Amino acid sequence: MPRERDVTPRVAEIDRVLEVNGAFLGASAKPAAAELIEPDGGALVDLLVPDSKAAEKESEARGLVQVKIGQIDLEWIHVVSEGWASPLKGFMRQAEYLQALHFNSLRMPNGLLANMSIPIVLAIDDEQKESIGNASSVTLVGPQGDMVAILSNIEIYKHNKEERIARTWGTTAPGLPYVDESITNAGNWLIGGDLEVLKRVKYNDGLDHYRLSPMELRAEFARRKADAVFAFQLRNPVHNGHALLMTDTRRRLLEMGYKNPILLLHPLGGFTKADDVPLEWRMRQHDEVLKAGVLDPETTVVAIFPSPMHYAGPTEVQWHAKARINAGANFYIVGRDPAGMGHPIEKRDLYDADHGKLVLSMAPGLERLNILPFRVAAYDKTKSKMAFFDPSRPQDFVFISGTKMRNFAKSGESPPDGFMCPGGWKVLVEYYQSKAKEATATSP
Amino acid sequence: MPRERDVTPRVAEIDRVLEVNGAFLGASAKPAAAELIEPDGGALVDLLVPDSKAAEKESEARGLVQVKIGQIDLEWIHVVSEGWASPLKGFMRQAEYLQALHFNSLRMPNGLLANMSIPIVLAIDDEQKESIGNASSVTLVGPQGDMVAILSNIEIYKHNKEERIARTWGTTAPGLPYVDESITNAGNWLIGGDLEVLKRVKYNDGLDHYRLSPMELRAEFARRKADAVFAFQLRNPVHNGHALLMTDTRRRLLEMGYKNPILLLHPLGGFTKADDVPLEWRMRQHDEVLKAGVLDPETTVVAIFPSPMHYAGPTEVQWHAKARINAGANFYIVGRDPAGMGHPIEKRDLYDADHGKLVLSMAPGLERLNILPFRVAAYDKTKSKMAFFDPSRPQDFVFISGTKMRNFAKSGESPPDGFMCPGGWKVLVEYYQSKAKEATATSP
Repeated sequence: MPRERDVTPRVAEIDRVLEVNGAFLGASAKPAAAELIEPDGGALVDLLVPDSKAAEKESEARGLVQVKIGQIDLEWIHVVSEGWASPLKGFMRQAEYLQALHFNSLRMPNGLLANMSIPIVLAIDDEQKESIGNASSVTLVGPQGDMVAILSNIEIYKHNKEERIARTWGTTAPGLPYVDESITNAGNWLIGGDLEVLKRVKYNDGLDHYRLSPMELRAEFARRKADAVFAFQLRNPVHNGHALLMTDTRRRLLEMGYKNPILLLHPLGGFTKADDVPLEWRMRQHDEVLKAGVLDPETTVVAIFPSPMHYAGPTEVQWHAKARINAGANFYIVGRDPAGMGHPIEKRDLYDADHGKLVLSMAPGLERLNILPFRVAAYDKTKSKMAFFDPSRPQDFVFISGTKMRNFAKSGESPPDGFMCPGGWKVLVEYYQSKAKEATATSP
Repeated sequence: MPRERDVTPRVAEIDRVLEVNGAFLGASAKPAAAELIEPDGGALVDLLVPDSKAAEKESEARGLVQVKIGQIDLEWIHVVSEGWASPLKGFMRQAEYLQALHFNSLRMPNGLLANMSIPIVLAIDDEQKESIGNASSVTLVGPQGDMVAILSNIEIYKHNKEERIARTWGTTAPGLPYVDESITNAGNWLIGGDLEVLKRVKYNDGLDHYRLSPMELRAEFARRKADAVFAFQLRNPVHNGHALLMTDTRRRLLEMGYKNPILLLHPLGGFTKADDVPLEWRMRQHDEVLKAGVLDPETTVVAIFPSPMHYAGPTEVQWHAKARINAGANFYIVGRDPAGMGHPIEKRDLYDADHGKLVLSMAPGLERLNILPFRVAAYDKTKSKMAFFDPSRPQDFVFISGTKMRNFAKSGESPPDGFMCPGGWKVLVEYYQSKAKEATATSP
């Protein structure tokens, strides 16, 4: 099996899992015909009403009970309608919800499992439930008041928030960002059903051209004649260590015999917590990185992954990986503590840093995906650049954490030369200084 | 498919799940050759050291670091050593633990999934970890000080109690009986490895003859030429409503074409919470029920299921069902709110009463098991006996809850005639009155 066995010191653990699970990881990295990986369920879900039916569906929507939704709900509609969650065709009904919660996967009609680790659900309150009555379809109305979608063959069931939170996050501690934003004050009912989306979800923030659907991404990969696609999920600025990892991954894929591996640099674009760098700044930073040639535009596709962020560690990393299969990626780069964060009330990380990678390597429905553990890069003082950490000479390396980077940028101090391309760094400095100004302006 | 579709008013929901999952529930109830269902993994795990090796293994055990274990740990050793958890061969290592926690299943070497919803783990504290050092095997020493088993090829990993509890119970509220008994004060490490059990686990409580291993149960079913085995898990006294359900199930299996369906009446014998009727009283009660002919001894096997109780609802019911496959059962009767309890701090049930059945019907690794939803029986006043509830004349029925039954027994008041055989009822009255006496004796 052409899985890398010497990528990081931690890969030994993955190897052990491979042994434990024997035949499980049958996903072969062997170059085959230049065909993209099949979406989950065999066909990409596309829930956008075709132009030919738009008028009819709009008129239908006007006649239905209206249910007002929030921004995160809209992000999920965007996600589901474009097929990122294939084979899911709408907000989950109870049977799907329970399978996601208990098994992190959905049974497909052919008996096989598709990975689905995060409940994609829509909450409604008692009043909304009352207004729906016995209707079988409703119209979902966006935060701006526009009709977004029809939800049909609906099913309403209890929203046990405590259980949902406990099983998704492995904690019920107060202060989980997604929970605070989208669950705590949500209604006590969930409404599932099939979605028909009236028009493509747009954000009009100047970034919509980055929001390529899985279908558009697949077309782009095909156009470039990609015979391997490796996805890199991120919600942070790209420094040269990331870039090194990505170029090195391409090199290794070429060594394996692939002719044209394409990188999908795929920043998450939905809800993030307050102290993450906002999407528009991250995109400006990524632009600079490509402009500077740190990443090769010929072999890199930059696009926005429209999902909101759960910060649910090993549970969420499966979702991040699964969605990228649907976008055509057959390799997924996983770092330490993916989708992790500090415990909201205890002084420790919420998740074991290795669990994400381990869970990902064993997850039902992800057998076809090749998992590439992140190789740790750090600043090599002897070479004045980012390099893969060499455990035989730890004294030569400086780890520049997110916090350290933020502090450099806030204080206007430059990071070590070669840490990030100057154009990209400038964007970050601008962002943190604008934030600092804002804070000063609003302080009493 | 000869699945029952009209067993209870709630079975409609199961039907919907069946439709949703299409080909999933391929388990056929069609009578085939009189062969028992195959254990998970193809062969029953048996970890008891054979007599021929006993002396050698005892001497080996004496030379190893000793790790003291508690009563519940001993119960798990009993469970695992006899193959109830097949294909599991010891306390879980991290890869197995994570799969149980996240996927409720274990990937087998053939790539298929075996159901495994409950982590079967052994906790050790810092001091024990220290004393183990780099040893690869340890000897587990029981609560009585006797050497119980060798655990080899050990792996020690972090015991994140909060995450374990949240993902297993769907809550972290204080007051979960198993958590209080076995997790809260347990060590911060888990130790996994392969078990070799030095001698059969015995309790010397006069009930060991009821503790038939899966292998012994299979032999008994074969001896009786069973062509279907239907398991009924319980931890309560058997009343005539249960008996009706069980005889009716047999009748229905005969109608399906089975020639000799055997009932496995299978009370749980491990740890239970303080207000459950203790095992010895339950067994006396079950004895009386058989003596009175309420259940036919010819077609009933009464045995003890040695597992401790988690009270983890939909998560635990999968374990209860899976273990019975290993004991040879191909039908499993599931009630409302299986393995459920009241929320420890809120005024509601911890689990949705229907989730257990739904989760069971969709669980990975249980596809081969036929799930029979519990048909609700109540006291029919017009017939002066327990009968299946008839929703067309609800006024004729009295539901006798556990609490009501307890109150009858405590006060010495008789339940309605026909609720329970007099011999069985007498046992309960004795139990509750002995408890009341105890309480009086110890009150200040």
